[in-house]
Amino acid sequence: GHYRLRLIGSKDLNAISTVKTAHTLFDSVCRSMASKTPVGFVGLGNMGNPMAKNLLKHGYPVVAYDVFPEACKEIQDSGAQITDSPADVAEKADRIITMLPSSANALEVYTGSNGILKKVKKGSLLIDSSTIDPAVSKEVAKAVEKQGAMFMDAPVSGGVGAARSGNLTFMVGGVEQEFNAAKELLTCMGANVVYCGEVGTGQAAKICNNMLLAIGMIGTAETMNLGIRLGLDPKLLAKILNMSSGRCWSSDTYNPVPGVMEGVPSANNYQGGFGTTLMAKDLGLAQDSATNTKTPTPLGSLSHQIYRVMCAKGYAQKDFSSVFQFLREDENL
Amino acid sequence: GHYRLRLIGSKDLNAISTVKTAHTLFDSVCRSMASKTPVGFVGLGNMGNPMAKNLLKHGYPVVAYDVFPEACKEIQDSGAQITDSPADVAEKADRIITMLPSSANALEVYTGSNGILKKVKKGSLLIDSSTIDPAVSKEVAKAVEKQGAMFMDAPVSGGVGAARSGNLTFMVGGVEQEFNAAKELLTCMGANVVYCGEVGTGQAAKICNNMLLAIGMIGTAETMNLGIRLGLDPKLLAKILNMSSGRCWSSDTYNPVPGVMEGVPSANNYQGGFGTTLMAKDLGLAQDSATNTKTPTPLGSLSHQIYRVMCAKGYAQKDFSSVFQFLREDENL
Amino acid sequence: GHYRLRLIGSKDLNAISTVKTAHTLFDSVCRSMASKTPVGFVGLGNMGNPMAKNLLKHGYPVVAYDVFPEACKEIQDSGAQITDSPADVAEKADRIITMLPSSANALEVYTGSNGILKKVKKGSLLIDSSTIDPAVSKEVAKAVEKQGAMFMDAPVSGGVGAARSGNLTFMVGGVEQEFNAAKELLTCMGANVVYCGEVGTGQAAKICNNMLLAIGMIGTAETMNLGIRLGLDPKLLAKILNMSSGRCWSSDTYNPVPGVMEGVPSANNYQGGFGTTLMAKDLGLAQDSATNTKTPTPLGSLSHQIYRVMCAKGYAQKDFSSVFQFLREDENL
Amino acid sequence: GHYRLRLIGSKDLNAISTVKTAHTLFDSVCRSMASKTPVGFVGLGNMGNPMAKNLLKHGYPVVAYDVFPEACKEIQDSGAQITDSPADVAEKADRIITMLPSSANALEVYTGSNGILKKVKKGSLLIDSSTIDPAVSKEVAKAVEKQGAMFMDAPVSGGVGAARSGNLTFMVGGVEQEFNAAKELLTCMGANVVYCGEVGTGQAAKICNNMLLAIGMIGTAETMNLGIRLGLDPKLLAKILNMSSGRCWSSDTYNPVPGVMEGVPSANNYQGGFGTTLMAKDLGLAQDSATNTKTPTPLGSLSHQIYRVMCAKGYAQKDFSSVFQFLREDENL
Repeated sequence: GHYRLRLIGSKDLNAISTVKTAHTLFDSVCRSMASKTPVGFVGLGNMGNPMAKNLLKHGYPVVAYDVFPEACKEIQDSGAQITDSPADVAEKADRIITMLPSSANALEVYTGSNGILKKVKKGSLLIDSSTIDPAVSKEVAKAVEKQGAMFMDAPVSGGVGAARSGNLTFMVGGVEQEFNAAKELLTCMGANVVYCGEVGTGQAAKICNNMLLAIGMIGTAETMNLGIRLGLDPKLLAKILNMSSGRCWSSDTYNPVPGVMEGVPSANNYQGGFGTTLMAKDLGLAQDSATNTKTPTPLGSLSHQIYRVMCAKGYAQKDFSSVFQFLREDENL
Repeated sequence: GHYRLRLIGSKDLNAISTVKTAHTLFDSVCRSMASKTPVGFVGLGNMGNPMAKNLLKHGYPVVAYDVFPEACKEIQDSGAQITDSPADVAEKADRIITMLPSSANALEVYTGSNGILKKVKKGSLLIDSSTIDPAVSKEVAKAVEKQGAMFMDAPVSGGVGAARSGNLTFMVGGVEQEFNAAKELLTCMGANVVYCGEVGTGQAAKICNNMLLAIGMIGTAETMNLGIRLGLDPKLLAKILNMSSGRCWSSDTYNPVPGVMEGVPSANNYQGGFGTTLMAKDLGLAQDSATNTKTPTPLGSLSHQIYRVMCAKGYAQKDFSSVFQFLREDENL
Repeated sequence: GHYRLRLIGSKDLNAISTVKTAHTLFDSVCRSMASKTPVGFVGLGNMGNPMAKNLLKHGYPVVAYDVFPEACKEIQDSGAQITDSPADVAEKADRIITMLPSSANALEVYTGSNGILKKVKKGSLLIDSSTIDPAVSKEVAKAVEKQGAMFMDAPVSGGVGAARSGNLTFMVGGVEQEFNAAKELLTCMGANVVYCGEVGTGQAAKICNNMLLAIGMIGTAETMNLGIRLGLDPKLLAKILNMSSGRCWSSDTYNPVPGVMEGVPSANNYQGGFGTTLMAKDLGLAQDSATNTKTPTPLGSLSHQIYRVMCAKGYAQKDFSSVFQFLREDENL
Repeated sequence: GHYRLRLIGSKDLNAISTVKTAHTLFDSVCRSMASKTPVGFVGLGNMGNPMAKNLLKHGYPVVAYDVFPEACKEIQDSGAQITDSPADVAEKADRIITMLPSSANALEVYTGSNGILKKVKKGSLLIDSSTIDPAVSKEVAKAVEKQGAMFMDAPVSGGVGAARSGNLTFMVGGVEQEFNAAKELLTCMGANVVYCGEVGTGQAAKICNNMLLAIGMIGTAETMNLGIRLGLDPKLLAKILNMSSGRCWSSDTYNPVPGVMEGVPSANNYQGGFGTTLMAKDLGLAQDSATNTKTPTPLGSLSHQIYRVMCAKGYAQKDFSSVFQFLREDENL
């Protein structure tokens, strides 16, 4: 889809990403000097594939692996070297990026019987761009550190289009001194790279943002629907909200009501954008984190339930702003 | 309190309030010519009192009534004429503003045994600035029209401070041709006057905005709390959200986490601002409207419940952003 | 439908309905003596029609009114006298039963321009079997008392089948001394007549029961669905729950999972029973009452929202236990 | 506390637990013959300690381990043999019962570096009575089977009192042919032993029951509170609900309103019973399971949030029926 969730605006970002790295570690100096040595890449799906290609475009040799041979074939045709396992990737590259669909996959790729940790070299930098449970990121980080290597979580914001055009946003958690080393690679694939804090905070920032996004979107959908039924013109209502304290990204940038804005999924039958299934997955991670930390999240929790129900009602592949359509249906018709 | 909920920004508002009134009715012409004839005012509470004073300041003679003699006394000292009942106000003024605490009070003042409608003159303009159920506004409007007078709902946004400084925002519902006549008076008391549509839409706009505001605020509180427990710095998290799709008024203008922003209630122990009790009241009105129109509002409904519980837990008088504090308390401490 | 919500069991009920009426009022004595004098009936819909017929069967002359001429025609053919308005009914009968679809209809029939109160006789007994907002019942009761007559709310439990077979349950609110007079008539139409307290408590008891019923039903549906997905056999799970602290009427008497029980709507594609629309209406009344009394009802409120959404998704006419089907749909299929 | 959550009634239970074991495996025959050989026990907390003592009372030698030396000391004084690790327990006993506070602890005790699986003998029977995520139970079961041993999950219902008096209920998941072997030991500690299906279904049955229990309890608390505010007498309302479709275990056996029933925690300032913290934990497990299986559980999810908030508001140690008190507080007082 050509719509893109602009998670992070471009302005101001230099300020954030210019992290003061007073004492750069020896390891990262070495890696920096050897800048165009091979970069490993594990997970060549819809997102990983274009990301790896962008590394190739920037002149980095890529050593890649995926469980699906076809995915390997495609990136091989673009010039990457293919290996037999994550362990083999770790043997051939001391900087590795992973992009996997779930916490279980990430655990397997790092700590499994043919996982990266079987052959990882000391001082390696391992960057996981999967969106997974921050608790799993921390667990993997510990295992990585035991081997004398370094782990950072760097989940992305932005869909397949942003992956292709190199416009992803990375939210990075890990040791601050390693941030510049990670940034060198991540800027090949993304327009914005934000340092969030210790390991796990990249994931935390992403799931926090997406939880609030879901709440704002459902809230906007409810509110617009209520206002319309009370006789308000949708465009006027959006205008009033956007000048007022009800304003949010979902009301002023991504309004879910058809006819209010152009160039958003609601103007195109909710095609493209950020799918309901993906939102439900991220909200599931938010709930796991909330349960683990005993944090009450009543609206986040209910939003999760709503997107869960929508997935089973034919909205799974539609943009998540289709919650307006879901709530809109009139029992009187 | 000196905090003010800026419901409507000043920019752009001329565009909205410049309503095309092709055919001004005879009645409103007459009233306009007689511009400095007395204006009636019923309901002289915390809000009504400074509003009536602003009318006096602008040179309008005011004929006032309130059930509480002390409230009458104060405005009388400022130069207003006091009457014995709403009916008597209607006898002496053909433009009346009412500012009452509830739907029941509004019904009584308009249709009660000593109500305005007992003595209202044909062609009078009656403006109700109370925040009440839009269905009640419509009901009153019908009764008013039967008497040959005109009714508009014009609830306000902004608290006591804005009432004093004449910086309220009015959201106005009613016949469009009467809007200019209403605006003449309302601009004495408010900085912004927005036309929303037919009778009841002023109320609708207000309760819609406040419902989305409540959802955004609770969502922001949950999200900030979760992020903090996951190890994120609150200021950094707010910065990330505000550059991202999680952005909303409650995160970027009125952040509920102490230490993130200055000049907001969270920086002052949640003193001042917009009280939890008032938010609970507005959410109750939103739920009534949703039930009447069979509109599903899952998050709005749950937000109502949360503010309802908070009212009973010692948060009634605190600013509504204190929901962060409510959710924040740690069971491990 | 031949399924019946058995709201009140028959055992024990004598104990409850045997109200000590130490001092029977003069009015009720008079009415009792004149036992077979005409009984008025306003509202001849799906429920009112068979109720009125049961009064006729018990030998009471019936004076009836309905806004729909066809409804009048049918009861006229059964021997009732038809009048032109509720007021006319009140002129011809000093005991009147009303059975109306909404609070607004009840207000109109009692206090409207041709309403009962226009011609009600002193000492009349007016019984409203509509399910409406208890606050409206109280309001009507006050107006009735001003005319020197007596009002009781007596909403029913049980559907059209119970109305036909005279097996309804009446939950009665009003002055205790009048209860026996009301019971004389209500036992013609119902198997159980329960005295609940002052005016409005009949409504209160009904909406309280139905709110808890909705919560228990949705809870049972969620739980059964979760258990099935976790690998439990539905019948075994129901058996375990019913022996345990999870037990409720919806799990042990009206289980929503097809195949677990016989003779319930879930065994018949959710035909018959108590429709989702009616449940949504009752939950709306519960929410109105909760808002009015500032009572937090988080689960009741969310249950209302769920049935509201279901009404718009094709479940309006199905039994309310179809919430299992609504939640059951699998996003993976 | 002397209150006990009677999860499973005693009647009927023989029918359920009499599992047809057509072909008893050789391993279980051997164990059965060697009936009074040592039984291992890991986890000697508030529950494990009295459970292990009951095994001793029934004549079983017990080989025990706990991370806390004091816990070991106490059971040693009762006659048990103490070992240095779970692995050592597995070396000395081929039937082991574990009773641990969390999924993480269970994983450690079974698969950790000194875990049971390091030294487990082929054909051993390992029974985990912890309440943990059913997904973890399945994971452990797989690891156990790889070693040629057998695993069953058997979480308990009933508190410390039931553990002492040997009146626990066990809900057992695992291979059916092993059930009798497990039952032989479990009946020493519990009055009821219910076979639920394959591995993980014991946990599933427990968390399903407790989720529905929480929903019913909060629903009952809301409903009773609403009814009381609408003018109903609490005892009468409970009586009406219990004869009606609103009936549930929380309304008829464990009513949360003080004064309605005797011998329940609500009659004793919510002391004893089943603590809010424990309910919050079980609801967290239910949410994890629901998220994993993509099952929508709107009321279960909100109930989790409510108990989560209560834990932080001073209700952590009170019985979970104190939700009535939590919701009851009046904002007008």
